[in-house]
Amino acid sequence: MNIDLNCDMGESFGRYTLGDDEAIMQLITSANVACGWHAGDPIVMDRTVKLAKQYGVNVGAHPSHLDLQGFGRREIDLTPEEAELFIQYQLGALYAIAKANTVDLTHVKAHGAIYNQAAKDEQLAAGIAKGVAKFSKSLILVGLAGSALLRAGEAAGLRVASEGFPDRAYNPDGTLMSRKLPGAVMESAETVAANAVRLATHGVGDHGIDTLCIHGDGPHAVEFAHAVREALQANGIDVQGLQ
Amino acid sequence: MNIDLNCDMGESFGRYTLGDDEAIMQLITSANVACGWHAGDPIVMDRTVKLAKQYGVNVGAHPSHLDLQGFGRREIDLTPEEAELFIQYQLGALYAIAKANTVDLTHVKAHGAIYNQAAKDEQLAAGIAKGVAKFSKSLILVGLAGSALLRAGEAAGLRVASEGFPDRAYNPDGTLMSRKLPGAVMESAETVAANAVRLATHGVGDHGIDTLCIHGDGPHAVEFAHAVREALQANGIDVQGLQ
Amino acid sequence: MNIDLNCDMGESFGRYTLGDDEAIMQLITSANVACGWHAGDPIVMDRTVKLAKQYGVNVGAHPSHLDLQGFGRREIDLTPEEAELFIQYQLGALYAIAKANTVDLTHVKAHGAIYNQAAKDEQLAAGIAKGVAKFSKSLILVGLAGSALLRAGEAAGLRVASEGFPDRAYNPDGTLMSRKLPGAVMESAETVAANAVRLATHGVGDHGIDTLCIHGDGPHAVEFAHAVREALQANGIDVQGLQ
Amino acid sequence: MNIDLNCDMGESFGRYTLGDDEAIMQLITSANVACGWHAGDPIVMDRTVKLAKQYGVNVGAHPSHLDLQGFGRREIDLTPEEAELFIQYQLGALYAIAKANTVDLTHVKAHGAIYNQAAKDEQLAAGIAKGVAKFSKSLILVGLAGSALLRAGEAAGLRVASEGFPDRAYNPDGTLMSRKLPGAVMESAETVAANAVRLATHGVGDHGIDTLCIHGDGPHAVEFAHAVREALQANGIDVQGLQ
Repeated sequence: MNIDLNCDMGESFGRYTLGDDEAIMQLITSANVACGWHAGDPIVMDRTVKLAKQYGVNVGAHPSHLDLQGFGRREIDLTPEEAELFIQYQLGALYAIAKANTVDLTHVKAHGAIYNQAAKDEQLAAGIAKGVAKFSKSLILVGLAGSALLRAGEAAGLRVASEGFPDRAYNPDGTLMSRKLPGAVMESAETVAANAVRLATHGVGDHGIDTLCIHGDGPHAVEFAHAVREALQANGIDVQGLQ
Repeated sequence: MNIDLNCDMGESFGRYTLGDDEAIMQLITSANVACGWHAGDPIVMDRTVKLAKQYGVNVGAHPSHLDLQGFGRREIDLTPEEAELFIQYQLGALYAIAKANTVDLTHVKAHGAIYNQAAKDEQLAAGIAKGVAKFSKSLILVGLAGSALLRAGEAAGLRVASEGFPDRAYNPDGTLMSRKLPGAVMESAETVAANAVRLATHGVGDHGIDTLCIHGDGPHAVEFAHAVREALQANGIDVQGLQ
Repeated sequence: MNIDLNCDMGESFGRYTLGDDEAIMQLITSANVACGWHAGDPIVMDRTVKLAKQYGVNVGAHPSHLDLQGFGRREIDLTPEEAELFIQYQLGALYAIAKANTVDLTHVKAHGAIYNQAAKDEQLAAGIAKGVAKFSKSLILVGLAGSALLRAGEAAGLRVASEGFPDRAYNPDGTLMSRKLPGAVMESAETVAANAVRLATHGVGDHGIDTLCIHGDGPHAVEFAHAVREALQANGIDVQGLQ
Repeated sequence: MNIDLNCDMGESFGRYTLGDDEAIMQLITSANVACGWHAGDPIVMDRTVKLAKQYGVNVGAHPSHLDLQGFGRREIDLTPEEAELFIQYQLGALYAIAKANTVDLTHVKAHGAIYNQAAKDEQLAAGIAKGVAKFSKSLILVGLAGSALLRAGEAAGLRVASEGFPDRAYNPDGTLMSRKLPGAVMESAETVAANAVRLATHGVGDHGIDTLCIHGDGPHAVEFAHAVREALQANGIDVQGLQ
């Protein structure tokens, strides 16, 4: 039994530093690299790709709504065609920087609001999946377990990976509880680690989990990541990258 | 004897339309597609790639300073590393949209101020050339005839194309006269056409010319492009894409 | 009997020109000046204020979502506090440019998606109204007839102006039909002019109309504005600015 | 004998936090509030104005080049008219947010590259000074001691304040040594404090100093600010706001 650990990386921007990417990179198997629309810039993207390469971590794109001030967390109303091309633009931007570092991209995971919108909105999900599939069918599309996005990815001929969030509370329908609500984000390493084991072994509802999301920007990010890894290993679950 | 005709294309943005791309596309052999930093957006990029494909025109990237309000015409002070990655980001963004349309990129031509800065600044030129070469050595780097950028391109192992501007006045040192000066931009189709023939046959100073730039955003763009093509053909010069 | 004619002005941006502001300015009584978030830039804002001053037209702010690529027409999910401060930022930016031209601002009209969202969303409307009222209680808040925004404006102690759209189709509930639907935008000058007279004399549902919106960016903008003015005058309705 | 202590404040942005504004605010007399073009956003601006009000600190505008990724530290080539209006836009944006908090603006200090460019470039300096003076002649224009900007401010009828940098090395001509050069930024609290006293008592070259800049974004910002205050007081120099 095995599971991938992914983390949003490269979310610094210009003068601003966010997260301890170097520490986290040593604990994960897949890095979702921000592409400049909600965070990240070409300098940060290059540094992040180099770091992932150094630690043998998968590199994927982490595209978003164009919303730097809102960190990509505001819902924005896009047409499927806009979503398709906005994702492609960001994916290509990272592809070039990765290629210059002789690194291949393995996956795509949308960020924040667009990830959540695409979990429910079939048309938006289809636009995103189409954007990825037209660029490359060898990329794995990561999405919320049971989401419209995963169904759209399969329909577009992509391999998909079903994601679980050990530090987030779920709504009864399997979507994530909004960050704005109390109790939506878990505060203790024990809870997060226990959730990780449960998600890896039992999934969410009827849906298995292929990859667990580790958040890298909280004050306890490194501690939580350690706790998750240890709990998984203690339960005989191998941590290895998507393939 | 032959020459390429290139034109900056896809410089519309969102609600704004600039230039008559469909009319111009039928008259040129290479389209330099704006990548969103001075003009263009993913929707416009996709439309422009499709148009180039329809008319059998080469597609290249037209990266710029990040300066939408200034249309990329303001000098901005970048380090070579910044230039390298900023160019790669834009190049990759267009690459993805082109690839989704099964179109290969043939060339890269920097836009506006960064083009002019890189004509003189050896370090900036090296950064740009490195950015392109690390992404792909099969891309042709277009630059001002006799410029630092062409030397940097060759040093980086790229094929280069030497560009002439039939509608612009030159300084004695072979650089372009600033647009802000009177007389810098030619106003008559006859002058532009005559300059095109002279540039194609005699070059600028010691430097031969591989490609002529046709501007697509002026009120007489289509008329000038017709005049240039006719004058070239009347003088036995074939118009064909860089290869 | 009298009515104000307002038009969104100053929606050019950098290298891009949109609308024939000088022609329209001679036909209206209130100019809603874009503030740089969906259109406009400081240069355009200054030019537009000068033009309004020259023709004796009221100057108001036309703030928007931050969405240049989408021209402010995409719904974005803002908190009331964000809306309050985003509006204030834009309002102040225009205030300074107007003050430098010794022009007072008379009104505020939100643009596009945020205007429509605030017609229905009481909390968003309250945020916008609060943003305006905290800056100045002498500004008139323009909103859709019968909208939550007008109620919020009154609750915040502002004078409000109820707006009608002679070139747009209405939903049965008094909101505007989406531009994406067929028939949402009127195509003939006669229809627009007849709607203008009807709106000025009978309002929408139970709601009177204080100001009519003339769109300035369509191909027939000037023709429609002429037709509206003539029809109003022929029906004894004076065209004069909000006061 | 007295001196003002100013610090760039409100340079956080969206998800990103920069500097410990609350700690620094208690040690300074003038806050230069970022206006969203190199740092800051309307939410951050509002929070910063409230903090300044709480601690009785002067609020001024800290406008910049539009360069969030480069934190306003890259030279960009602007015309004087562009500079005039770009400054006005930012100044007005902060003015509105300050007014909503019943706070008056006292001063304007340009940020980073444009500050340094305007120290030498008479035309750019004139554009900036004109932008401020047309908005309000009661604002104090802060500039480098001996700079073109201060001369332009006086010519435009503004009061000016001559600024010194206790943590920066100076070139022989009184301009600041570039941050990119070794030794340009002082690393010890003692050196910075000693420089502060020397600048306050002897000025730079022939030029007296009215205000000292405390940097708020370094790792030792609070420590340095304490050291400066103590050294000034120990030398009988009162710390008080510009007036």
